[in-house]
Amino acid sequence: MAAAVPIDWIVGWLDVAGVAVFAASGALTASRQQMDVVGFALVATVTGIGGGTIRDLLLGTGPVFWVFAPSYLFLCVGVAILLFFAAPLLESRFRALLWADAAGLAIFCVIGAEAALRAGSPGSVAVLMGVITATFGGLVRDVLCAEVPLILRREIYATAAAVGAGVYVGLDAAGAAPIAATLAAFATAFGIRAVGLTRGLSLPVYRNRPGRDDGDGGHG
Amino acid sequence: MAAAVPIDWIVGWLDVAGVAVFAASGALTASRQQMDVVGFALVATVTGIGGGTIRDLLLGTGPVFWVFAPSYLFLCVGVAILLFFAAPLLESRFRALLWADAAGLAIFCVIGAEAALRAGSPGSVAVLMGVITATFGGLVRDVLCAEVPLILRREIYATAAAVGAGVYVGLDAAGAAPIAATLAAFATAFGIRAVGLTRGLSLPVYRNRPGRDDGDGGHG
Amino acid sequence: MAAAVPIDWIVGWLDVAGVAVFAASGALTASRQQMDVVGFALVATVTGIGGGTIRDLLLGTGPVFWVFAPSYLFLCVGVAILLFFAAPLLESRFRALLWADAAGLAIFCVIGAEAALRAGSPGSVAVLMGVITATFGGLVRDVLCAEVPLILRREIYATAAAVGAGVYVGLDAAGAAPIAATLAAFATAFGIRAVGLTRGLSLPVYRNRPGRDDGDGGHG
Repeated sequence: MAAAVPIDWIVGWLDVAGVAVFAASGALTASRQQMDVVGFALVATVTGIGGGTIRDLLLGTGPVFWVFAPSYLFLCVGVAILLFFAAPLLESRFRALLWADAAGLAIFCVIGAEAALRAGSPGSVAVLMGVITATFGGLVRDVLCAEVPLILRREIYATAAAVGAGVYVGLDAAGAAPIAATLAAFATAFGIRAVGLTRGLSLPVYRNRPGRDDGDGGHG
Repeated sequence: MAAAVPIDWIVGWLDVAGVAVFAASGALTASRQQMDVVGFALVATVTGIGGGTIRDLLLGTGPVFWVFAPSYLFLCVGVAILLFFAAPLLESRFRALLWADAAGLAIFCVIGAEAALRAGSPGSVAVLMGVITATFGGLVRDVLCAEVPLILRREIYATAAAVGAGVYVGLDAAGAAPIAATLAAFATAFGIRAVGLTRGLSLPVYRNRPGRDDGDGGHG
Repeated sequence: MAAAVPIDWIVGWLDVAGVAVFAASGALTASRQQMDVVGFALVATVTGIGGGTIRDLLLGTGPVFWVFAPSYLFLCVGVAILLFFAAPLLESRFRALLWADAAGLAIFCVIGAEAALRAGSPGSVAVLMGVITATFGGLVRDVLCAEVPLILRREIYATAAAVGAGVYVGLDAAGAAPIAATLAAFATAFGIRAVGLTRGLSLPVYRNRPGRDDGDGGHG
C-alpha cells in the first residue's frame, strides 16, 4: 500500500512540514523575545530554511533551494503571522517550541542525509549532513535570539538526529525501499527525542572530577 | 538631472559607503570590547563585508565579491585604524554606532535586493535577500563581540530593512528608473530606522500574557 | 635535507594535525559543558573542519573539502571519543584547550593563506583568509557552546594569525621555497600566541576615556 505512494511525494511533503515546524519554533522563540511581527517573520524564515540552506552551501550545488522557490518564504511568513496572533492561546509556548523543534529535528535529519546521498556523498558525510541540517537551523534561531542553544540542554538532542540519519543511511545501503528508510529514520529520531523530552532521559555525560582542574572553576 | 548620473555609479558608491559605515560600526563595537588594533581590523572587515558575503554565498555566484577585489579589505582596515585613534573624540560612541549601523542597514537592504533581482530571483526572495544583506553583517559583528544583537532591541530594525527592500522591488516591478527606486528605497529604510532611533518608536510587539506560561519565567 | 621533503606532504600533514588539534579543542570545550559523547563528536567535528569549510565556501570552489574526503570526519570523531575518556586525566583541561587552540591557530593561518593564493587571490585577501580559517572554527565552537569567544580574551590572538599569514604571503611573494615559508609562518604565529599565553602579553588596547561616554556604562 505504502509502496504505491511515490517517494518524491513523501519527501516533498516532509520537507514542507519540516520547514513549517521549524518556522513555528522560530516564531515561538521570537515571542519569548517580544519581537514585532517583522521580527517574527525573520526569525521564522531563518529557522525554517536555515538548516537546508547550510546543507546546500556545503554540498556546493549552486543557489540554495529557496532562491528560485519563493513558496518556502511565503510558508515561513504565513506561519509567523499565524503564531503572532495564535501564540497567546497556547498553554505553554516553551513546551510547544520543544515539540515543534523535535519534529523538525526528526524530519531534517532524514532530508539532509537523503540530499547528501543523492549528491554522491559517502555515508559518513551523509550522517553529518543530516545532523547539520537538523540542528543548525535551530542553532541560528537561538543565536539570533540570544537564547542558550537547545543542543546544550541536558536531554538527548544531537544524538537523536545522528541515530536517525544513521538509520536512513544504513537502510539505504542495505537496499531498503526509500519510503521505508525515510519513515523508519523519522520515527527513530522523533522517538528518541520524545523519550528525551518526556522522561528527561540523557546519555551518560562527561563529568568533571572535582579538584583536578585549575581554570575550570564554575564549570564543574 | 539625476537621470544623467549612471545608476551603476550610484550603486557602486552606495556599496562602498555601506561597507565603510558598517566597518565603522564594527570598529566602534570593537572599541566597546577594548580590543587591540588587529581586533578592530578583523571586526570591522567582517562587519563591512559580512552581509554581502552571505548574500553572494546564498545566490551561489562563485567566489564572493571581495575575493578578487581586495580594495574592500583595504577600506575596512583603513576605517578600523582611523577609528582606533579617532573613536575617543566621539561624544558618544554608542550613538555613533547606532547611526552608522542605520546608514549601513538602509544602503544594504537596497544593494541586497538589487543584486538578487539581477541574479534572476523573484521579488519575495529579493526582499529577504535585502533584509539578510542588511542585518547579517551586524549580526556577525554582535556574535563576534558577544553583544546583544541590535535586531533584539526594542526599536524598529529589521522592519526598516524589509520595507526598504520592498519599496525597491515594488518600484522596480512598476518600471521605475533604477536610480529613483534606489534613492526612494534608501530614504524609506533610513527614515524608518531614524524615527525608531530618535523617537524610540516601535511596532506593536508580541506580549506574553502573565500567568499562562510554565517554563517561560523571566521572559514575560 | 628539508628540501627533499615534498611540500604537499608537509601541507597535507599540517592540515591533518590542524584538524586534529582543533577537534581536540572542541572536545575539551564540550567537556566543560558536560555534553554526552555525541555532543563531543559534533562539537569536535564542527571545530576541526569549520575554519577550512568557511574558507572553501568563500573561495567558491564547489563542495567543501570534506564532502568527498570522509576521513576528516573519522579523525574528528576519533579524537572526540578519545578525549571523552581521556580528558579527566589532563591536569588542566582549560590550559590544554588553550594550547590545542594555539597550535590549530598557527597551522590554519598558513593553510588558509596557502589555499587562497593557490586559488589566485591577491595577497591581502590571502591574509584575511588565513585569519578567517584560523579563527572561525574556534568561533563556531564557542558560539555552539555559549562560551566567550577566545578572540575577545585579552591575550594576543587574531594578531598571531594575521602576522603568521602575512609572513607566509610575504615569503611566498619574495620567492621563498614553499616549505620555508610554511614553517617560518607557522613558527611565527605559534610563537606569538605562545608568548601571549605564557606571559599574558597583549598589544596596546583601545581604552575608553571615562566620563566621555553615555550609553557605554559598564563597558569602560
